[in-house]
Amino acid sequence: MNAAIIGVTGYSGTVLYQLLSQHPAVENIHLYGHQDTAAPRFLNDEIEAFCDRRIMIEPYDVRKIMAENDVVFFATPAGVTAKLAQPYLDADFPVIDLSGDMRLKDPKEYAKWYHKDPAPADQLAKAQYGLAEFNTVHAGYVANPGCYATATLLGLAPLIKKHLIDPDSIIVDAKSGLSGAGKKLTTSSHFAWINENSQPYKVNQHQHIPEILQQLQQWDASVKALQFTTTLIPVTRGIMASIYAKPLPGVDEEKLTAAFEECYGKRRFVRLVKNGWPSIKEVSHSNFCDLGWALDPNSHTILVVSVIDNLMKGAAGQAVQNLNHMFELDETLGLPMIPSWP
Amino acid sequence: MNAAIIGVTGYSGTVLYQLLSQHPAVENIHLYGHQDTAAPRFLNDEIEAFCDRRIMIEPYDVRKIMAENDVVFFATPAGVTAKLAQPYLDADFPVIDLSGDMRLKDPKEYAKWYHKDPAPADQLAKAQYGLAEFNTVHAGYVANPGCYATATLLGLAPLIKKHLIDPDSIIVDAKSGLSGAGKKLTTSSHFAWINENSQPYKVNQHQHIPEILQQLQQWDASVKALQFTTTLIPVTRGIMASIYAKPLPGVDEEKLTAAFEECYGKRRFVRLVKNGWPSIKEVSHSNFCDLGWALDPNSHTILVVSVIDNLMKGAAGQAVQNLNHMFELDETLGLPMIPSWP
Amino acid sequence: MNAAIIGVTGYSGTVLYQLLSQHPAVENIHLYGHQDTAAPRFLNDEIEAFCDRRIMIEPYDVRKIMAENDVVFFATPAGVTAKLAQPYLDADFPVIDLSGDMRLKDPKEYAKWYHKDPAPADQLAKAQYGLAEFNTVHAGYVANPGCYATATLLGLAPLIKKHLIDPDSIIVDAKSGLSGAGKKLTTSSHFAWINENSQPYKVNQHQHIPEILQQLQQWDASVKALQFTTTLIPVTRGIMASIYAKPLPGVDEEKLTAAFEECYGKRRFVRLVKNGWPSIKEVSHSNFCDLGWALDPNSHTILVVSVIDNLMKGAAGQAVQNLNHMFELDETLGLPMIPSWP
Amino acid sequence: MNAAIIGVTGYSGTVLYQLLSQHPAVENIHLYGHQDTAAPRFLNDEIEAFCDRRIMIEPYDVRKIMAENDVVFFATPAGVTAKLAQPYLDADFPVIDLSGDMRLKDPKEYAKWYHKDPAPADQLAKAQYGLAEFNTVHAGYVANPGCYATATLLGLAPLIKKHLIDPDSIIVDAKSGLSGAGKKLTTSSHFAWINENSQPYKVNQHQHIPEILQQLQQWDASVKALQFTTTLIPVTRGIMASIYAKPLPGVDEEKLTAAFEECYGKRRFVRLVKNGWPSIKEVSHSNFCDLGWALDPNSHTILVVSVIDNLMKGAAGQAVQNLNHMFELDETLGLPMIPSWP
Repeated sequence: MNAAIIGVTGYSGTVLYQLLSQHPAVENIHLYGHQDTAAPRFLNDEIEAFCDRRIMIEPYDVRKIMAENDVVFFATPAGVTAKLAQPYLDADFPVIDLSGDMRLKDPKEYAKWYHKDPAPADQLAKAQYGLAEFNTVHAGYVANPGCYATATLLGLAPLIKKHLIDPDSIIVDAKSGLSGAGKKLTTSSHFAWINENSQPYKVNQHQHIPEILQQLQQWDASVKALQFTTTLIPVTRGIMASIYAKPLPGVDEEKLTAAFEECYGKRRFVRLVKNGWPSIKEVSHSNFCDLGWALDPNSHTILVVSVIDNLMKGAAGQAVQNLNHMFELDETLGLPMIPSWP
Repeated sequence: MNAAIIGVTGYSGTVLYQLLSQHPAVENIHLYGHQDTAAPRFLNDEIEAFCDRRIMIEPYDVRKIMAENDVVFFATPAGVTAKLAQPYLDADFPVIDLSGDMRLKDPKEYAKWYHKDPAPADQLAKAQYGLAEFNTVHAGYVANPGCYATATLLGLAPLIKKHLIDPDSIIVDAKSGLSGAGKKLTTSSHFAWINENSQPYKVNQHQHIPEILQQLQQWDASVKALQFTTTLIPVTRGIMASIYAKPLPGVDEEKLTAAFEECYGKRRFVRLVKNGWPSIKEVSHSNFCDLGWALDPNSHTILVVSVIDNLMKGAAGQAVQNLNHMFELDETLGLPMIPSWP
Repeated sequence: MNAAIIGVTGYSGTVLYQLLSQHPAVENIHLYGHQDTAAPRFLNDEIEAFCDRRIMIEPYDVRKIMAENDVVFFATPAGVTAKLAQPYLDADFPVIDLSGDMRLKDPKEYAKWYHKDPAPADQLAKAQYGLAEFNTVHAGYVANPGCYATATLLGLAPLIKKHLIDPDSIIVDAKSGLSGAGKKLTTSSHFAWINENSQPYKVNQHQHIPEILQQLQQWDASVKALQFTTTLIPVTRGIMASIYAKPLPGVDEEKLTAAFEECYGKRRFVRLVKNGWPSIKEVSHSNFCDLGWALDPNSHTILVVSVIDNLMKGAAGQAVQNLNHMFELDETLGLPMIPSWP
Repeated sequence: MNAAIIGVTGYSGTVLYQLLSQHPAVENIHLYGHQDTAAPRFLNDEIEAFCDRRIMIEPYDVRKIMAENDVVFFATPAGVTAKLAQPYLDADFPVIDLSGDMRLKDPKEYAKWYHKDPAPADQLAKAQYGLAEFNTVHAGYVANPGCYATATLLGLAPLIKKHLIDPDSIIVDAKSGLSGAGKKLTTSSHFAWINENSQPYKVNQHQHIPEILQQLQQWDASVKALQFTTTLIPVTRGIMASIYAKPLPGVDEEKLTAAFEECYGKRRFVRLVKNGWPSIKEVSHSNFCDLGWALDPNSHTILVVSVIDNLMKGAAGQAVQNLNHMFELDETLGLPMIPSWP
C-alpha cells in the first residue's frame, strides 16, 4: 500500500516515518505539509538524522493525497485536522489522525481544553477513537489516542471495567519526558532548565483529561472526574502514569491480578510485570505498555504503574497498530516486538 | 567551636563537611571513621573532589571525640548509632545524628523497617526528632530527619495541624534523585540503567514511612496510614513529594492558602510558591523547601508539591540548621540563603 | 539459519539478541553461557526488559552448540574466547566474536594490553579482522572490531589509504558513553558520579589502541603510533572520535573531500555529513557511521569527526553486517536503515 | 562597598548575584538593565529560583550607576559594552566586564569574530585583560576572560611560558556544557536534542580563539595559530579543554611537571591533579581550575586536561576574584573554597 504522512517533521511524524519505512505492507511513503501554499521542502533538510533521505515534502493537496495513497496519517499540531478532516470523512477514506482534534465528541469540550475552534459535531461523531487494545477500527477515520491518555486508560481499564474501585477516588500522577511537549523551543525544554530538574505543569488542565474521562465514562458512566497531575522529568522519551484509587469492599490483590490478566492475557503489546515495577526504559523504542499493580493493606489504596514510550505506544506505534487493524494485517506487523535496551 | 564528623565519606557527610568548613562559628572540623579498628585515612584520598584537603580521618574513639569537640555529627549508615549513641546520651553531649537509627521511638518499628537491631527504648526516648521548622532542639541528641520525611512532613504539616483533610486519604507520590540512595554501587544506580529511565522502588516499604507517621500522629492522632510511593528519577540531587488528600467539608483554596501562610509565614527556609509550581532545581544546593498547592474543584482533591535538595534540607543543611538552634545561633548561619542556579 | 549467542546478558549480547530476533534469515536463536558448569537460567530473569521472553540460557557445550547452530556469536568478556576458540577454528565453523580476544595477531600485544593469557599465535593467525567496510569475510572466524577502533578506523581510512597526512601526527580525542564500559558496577558508572560530569580515563592505555595500529599499519606501514585519549561523557550510547592530523604538502579540502567520497561513496552504512557536523544522536540505534571533516587553513590541521552507536556499528550491528557478508546475504539485511530519532 | 550588576538575568549575571549576595565586603547590590528605556522589573519575576528576592532591576542610567556604586559588573550580551564603556573609562571608574567586548585589542579582530561593531581602539587599549592568575588588575576597566579562554590559557600557560612545546602544534579539543551558550532558546539547547547527544559546533570559528591567541602571543610571540574544536556535551555546567601539543626536544614528563608546579604552586584556585585525571564535576560550583598532564612516549604528544565551572572560574567566579584584586582584598574572599559535590 501507499501511505501519506502529513506533518513528518514533528517528533510523532518522524517516528511514524521510521516505522512505516520498515513496514512490510507499505510500499511507498509520500510526505506532505499541511499547508497548500508551502514551498516543497526535503526531508533531509528538515531532519538532519535523515541526511541520506532526499525525499520531497510536497504542499498539501487533498485530491492528490487521496489519489496517490491508500491511507493518510496526520501528525499535525492541534487545530489542523479540525479544518482538514471533512473530505476524508465524506469519502470514507482511511485516515489515522495522531492529533487531538477528532478525539472528543463534544465540540465545546474541545474548545475548552484546546483553546481552538473545534471540528463540527457531525464530523466528530464519525471519527472513531482508536485505543487499540479495546477499539478495533476497521475503516474510516481513526482518532489515535494521546500519550497520557493511552498510558492512563490502559492502566485504569481493568479497574473500571471490572468495577473494582470507587469511581470518585482516581488520582493520576503522570511523569513525562520532554519529547511529549514537541519540538517547540520553550523555557521548560531548555537543557539547562530541565536537566537535573523536575516540575509539575498544566496540573488538572492537560488536554488529555477530557479524552480520558470520555473513554472511562464509556466503560463506567459513574466516573465523573479525576485528579490529573503532569510532571516533567529529564528524559527524552517515556511516560509513567502512577495511578491511585480506593478499592471497593471485597476487592483484594488476587481479584486485582485476575482483572489485569483477564483484560490483557492475550494482548501482544501489554506486558504484566509481576516481579518489581515497570520502568520506562524497559519499553523504550517499543510499542509495549508495561503494567504493575499493588494494593496496600494499610492505606487501602491501589497503585497501578503504567509505562509507555510516548512516541511509540503513545503516538506512532499505536498508529501503526491501528493501521494493521484497519487493513486486517497481523496487529504486530512492522512493529518491533522487543524493546531497545539499554 | 570544634565539630566532629563521623562518616564524612558518604554523600551526606561530604556535603556536611562542605557546609561546616564555611560555617563562621566552626573553628575546627575533626573527622573520624565509625570503627575503632580502622587505619587512619586521608580525606583527599577518599574524595577526589577534595584533593587539596589532606586531613586525617581518625579511627573512632569516643573519649577523644568528646574531649576534642563541642558537637558530633553522625553521617553513618543505618545500624551504627544504634550501637554508639549511649555514651553521648549519658553525658548529654551534643549530637546531631543524620542516620535513621534514633528517629523512631518504638524499637520494634525500627527492627521492622530497618531490618537491623534497634537501640534500647530508653535511648530512643531521649533522642529528639529535629524537624527544624517545628522542633527547636536546644541540647542533647538530635535525630535529624530523613530526606523523604522532611519533604513530606513540611508539605503535610499545614493540612494536618489545621485539620483540613480526611486523615485516611493521604497519598504521597515521591520522586527522588540518585544521591538519596547513597554511594553504594547497585544496578539501579548504574548510569546506563537509570539515565533516560524512571522506576518505582520500595513502594509502601520505605523506612521513612514510620518516621512520617510518628510525626503526623503527634500532630493529629487520627492519622493511621498513608500510601507512600517512591520513584527514582534521573537526577543527582533533589526530592519532589507530590502529596494528595481529600479536603474536609468547607475547605476551599482560600483556607488552604491561609494554612500555609500561617504555618510558614515567618520561616526563612520555607518558600511558598504562588506562581506556577515548585521545581527541584530551584532549591538545588540550598536549604530551602519550596511548597505549592491547589485544590481541584472537579475531583475534590488537594495537591501539595514539596521540593527539597535531599542532601541539604533533607540531610546536611537541616543538620546545620539544628546546630544553629542548639547553639542559639542565627538559624541561617553558615547556610547559603540563595539557590545555586542554573 | 540457527544462530547461537554466547553471553547474551551483557550489553552487546543484549543488542545482538534484539537484532537477530528480527533478522529475516535467522530462524532460531539459541542462548548459552560461557561456562559448562553454570546452571540453566532464563533470559527473562536476567534482563527485565525482556520479561516476555522465557528462553533458556543453556550451559556451555561446544558439541551441542556446533550441532544445533549454523553460526555462533560470542559476546563474552575478555579472556573467554582465547580459551574457547580452538574447536571452532579446527572445524572451520562460522564464528563472529565480539570480544577483543582474537583481534590482535601478536599474542604478546594481547597480553600487554589485556593483562590476560592470549590465544596461541596459530589461532590468532586464522581469525579474520571483520572491519566490515574494508574486510569482507566469507567464512571462518571473524574477530568483530572494537567500538573505539571502528569509529577511529572508519574516520582515518581515507587519510591513511590515500596518504594525505603525516603519519606521526595522529591525535584521537574519543568520547564515549557509559554502555561502552559494560554492565559492571564501578565508581565511574554510578549516576551520581558521571551525570553532569566528564573525565578522561585509560589515556594512551586503552586496549583498542593496538587494534587500531595493527589495521592502520596494514594500510600504511609508516604509521608507528597515535595519541589516543578516551573520555567518558554522560550518555548511555554513542562514541565520537575527534581525529586530528597534519596534512601532507599539497593536500587541500577538495582532496580531502574526494578521498572520503571515493572511500565511502557506495557504502550503505557510512554517511558523509557535509552540512554541519555529525552528532552521536543522529546515528543512535542504527548501524551508521557518520563522518564530517575540515582542514583549518590557519593551524594546518585536519579534523575528522566520526560518530557511531557503540552497541550497533561498534558491536552488535557490525556483527550482523559480518553475518550477512559471511552468508552472502544483502549487507543490510535485518539492520535498521534509519536512525531512531529523537 | 556597593556593587552594580548590569544584566543579572543571564546565567553569568545570575551566578554573579549569588556570589555577591554572600560576599563579606559587598554591602548593597544594585541591579540595572542595559537599556535606559526598559521599564523597571523585579528579580523575582525574572528568575523563579529567586522568588523570595523582590529587588528592582532599574533602567540603565550611567550617572546614577556611578553615583550609587563603587564598582560595576557588566554581564551583558556581546555588543553592549562596546557602546557603553566610554564614561567609565573616562572616569577611571572600576568596571568588571564579563562580556567579550573589551577583550581584544584590535577592533578589526572583534568585528571579524563577533560580527558586531567594535569599541574604538583607544578604549580597547585602556581595558585590562583580567586573567586572574597572571594579571592582577588594581584599578580601572577589567575585561574578564571568556570561559573557553580561561580553561585553555590556564592549561597552556606553563607550556608556553616555559617554551616546552612546538608553537605550531597546539590542538585544543574543548567540551562544554549547555549553560555556556546562554539562556537563549535554540535547537541545540532543546533537551530532546542534546540529551544523549554530543556535537561539535563553531569549529575554528569560536570567538574565544582570538582572545586565546592574543594572550599566548604576549607570552610567546611565536605562537601563530591553534586548532580549536568546541563540542557540546549534555551537562549544564562545566568545560573540559583537552590540549595537545608536541614537546620540544629534551622535554620530558619531569620538566613538564616542574613547569606546572612553578607556575601554580602558590595559586589558591589552580589544583594540580596527580592521581588520575581532572573531571568537571570535581570543580563544579567552585572557582577552581583543575589541571592534569602527561607526555606519551610513543606518540611524543603532551596532553593537558583543564577543567573549570564555566559560570564560576569561567565567568562570575573569576569576576569576583578580579574584584578582590582590584579592592586589595584577600583573593579568595566571598568565593567557596570547596567544590559542591556530588
